[in-house]
Amino acid sequence: METNLQFRLAARPVGMVKDSDWQQTEEPLRPLADGEIRVQVLYLSLDPAMRGWMNEGKSYIRPVAIGEVMRAGGVGVVAESRSPKFAAGDYVSGGTGVQRYWTGPADDKSASFHKIDPKLAPLTTYLNTLGMPGMTAYFGLTESGQPKAGETVVVSGAAGAVGQTVGQVAKQLGCRVVGIAGGKEKCDFVVRELGFDACIDYKNESVRDGLRQHCPQGVDVYFDNVGGDILDTVLTRINLKARIVICGAISQYNNTTPVQGPSNYLSLLVNRARMEGIVVFDYADRYHLGIAQLGRWMAEGKIKSKEDVVHGLENFPTALNMLFEGKNFGKLVLQVAAP
Amino acid sequence: METNLQFRLAARPVGMVKDSDWQQTEEPLRPLADGEIRVQVLYLSLDPAMRGWMNEGKSYIRPVAIGEVMRAGGVGVVAESRSPKFAAGDYVSGGTGVQRYWTGPADDKSASFHKIDPKLAPLTTYLNTLGMPGMTAYFGLTESGQPKAGETVVVSGAAGAVGQTVGQVAKQLGCRVVGIAGGKEKCDFVVRELGFDACIDYKNESVRDGLRQHCPQGVDVYFDNVGGDILDTVLTRINLKARIVICGAISQYNNTTPVQGPSNYLSLLVNRARMEGIVVFDYADRYHLGIAQLGRWMAEGKIKSKEDVVHGLENFPTALNMLFEGKNFGKLVLQVAAP
Repeated sequence: METNLQFRLAARPVGMVKDSDWQQTEEPLRPLADGEIRVQVLYLSLDPAMRGWMNEGKSYIRPVAIGEVMRAGGVGVVAESRSPKFAAGDYVSGGTGVQRYWTGPADDKSASFHKIDPKLAPLTTYLNTLGMPGMTAYFGLTESGQPKAGETVVVSGAAGAVGQTVGQVAKQLGCRVVGIAGGKEKCDFVVRELGFDACIDYKNESVRDGLRQHCPQGVDVYFDNVGGDILDTVLTRINLKARIVICGAISQYNNTTPVQGPSNYLSLLVNRARMEGIVVFDYADRYHLGIAQLGRWMAEGKIKSKEDVVHGLENFPTALNMLFEGKNFGKLVLQVAAP
Repeated sequence: METNLQFRLAARPVGMVKDSDWQQTEEPLRPLADGEIRVQVLYLSLDPAMRGWMNEGKSYIRPVAIGEVMRAGGVGVVAESRSPKFAAGDYVSGGTGVQRYWTGPADDKSASFHKIDPKLAPLTTYLNTLGMPGMTAYFGLTESGQPKAGETVVVSGAAGAVGQTVGQVAKQLGCRVVGIAGGKEKCDFVVRELGFDACIDYKNESVRDGLRQHCPQGVDVYFDNVGGDILDTVLTRINLKARIVICGAISQYNNTTPVQGPSNYLSLLVNRARMEGIVVFDYADRYHLGIAQLGRWMAEGKIKSKEDVVHGLENFPTALNMLFEGKNFGKLVLQVAAP
């Protein structure tokens, strides 16, 4: 049997993650103890949040320790099992970490493996619409954003993992949906393929002018994945009682200077508006409801799923940085082995 | 009869308001038309919000026009009446503007005069706890802050008009209350006289250390009147599901550079917390309920009211700037005539 290959955190990055922040290790695969399983990782989810997990300090989840295998969600196939919970050949989703094989107790809390069905949806969908990004989008939008039919919803990172589902769910709820994304290709995609009403290409257009043009009734819900100047600009266009969902701030994650606070936050006061932070884990007891609803919409062809697959575990460092350079187009997934 | 003396807006201020931004005008008092009243102004309310009204641009209320009498709330006595709504000698509260006499229709919408009873409470109280600051504090805290017994509430501008009532109401609701104010005298006052649990003197102490010391259980509700560094520091100490009420940002109102956005706003994400803006006018249909509750607590000696009275309409420009220099101690009121 082959050995395990792992990416471990070697140093806490300053700014963009460098190759030297990672350590590649190779280990023999140890025999299973009773109750344990071995999962062969097929696909890894690459998420902006991973950059935050590499930092020290209090957050919604403990930081990855120096020397620890980098945390990541993934899907895989059970290669061996000494647990009644899973059989060899089962497809599973869970916290595999950035490695070829995950080995441990079948009921490990932090890995939290559960079976998935490759006949219902492609495996990568379980890392996207039917995975964490989908749950983030579905619950964050409906519970914190609370869009009502006829309202205008704006979402940044519109072609990304979370943004694509936010916009499509908002369309299903009867909203006018305007995306913000980088580049003509992404903008064309969310409008033509995903059915957004419009998309502002922040790399080539003025976001301010775009909002004025495409949100003639103002902005009722803004789902923010990026922070920085875009958040500040949207704040100038919000309506009375608007809801801003703070899901992420990818523009700020590699800052070596302090985070750029929203200079226009007093628009919250003028408009009696609200800005609220969300973390997907809070909805864990209702994931099954979100998966059921999104699965239904997908089966009906009402919601599409777009993944950007990079091949080869060895390309993990380069692939992760694509997120912060806006180079991925759709949910970024790293294929570790052929399914 | 004497003439009317008025302060009109001469220019839109840049930074701190200068004497040249005002024009003093003197006019004869015209005879009343049918349905009109003349109110002799006794006390004027000086509020941080007035600085915002002097700026151009969209806000929750239209800007004061150049040449217009400066907007202000006041209490006065009806000097003459040709309306059945008010009799000469009635005490009233409403939008008098910065002048000696207000003359116009008894049912003028923007002035919105209503009778007050000087036997129930001192006249100045109707510009403080039983007026707009009291309503702002009461409804902003209870409706947006939603404090629960046992939670920790922090309020900045603690000795100011809104802050003093926020803290006292939170104490009545069973919360631990920590104020932030400038100077030992103000801090001693809110603790000893108003019954706050603690007060941090931001001019002489580290706010960060003070919060660590006085909020050992973290911060559940932060009622923000000041913005700037203090908001940013409190953001580092908030609890899961904390509520931040954005009532004002007095530290930023005279900026000639962009407003300082809260650099630590991603603490909202980490803590699934909320930041919401409030404007008192939204609660206008329930002011009577707020006045009844605050009046009851005042009558029972559970809530105190502290005003800082400056004398003489001619001192209006200097008095207004006291707010932005932190020089007032309690709700700032300008006495225009002896009651």
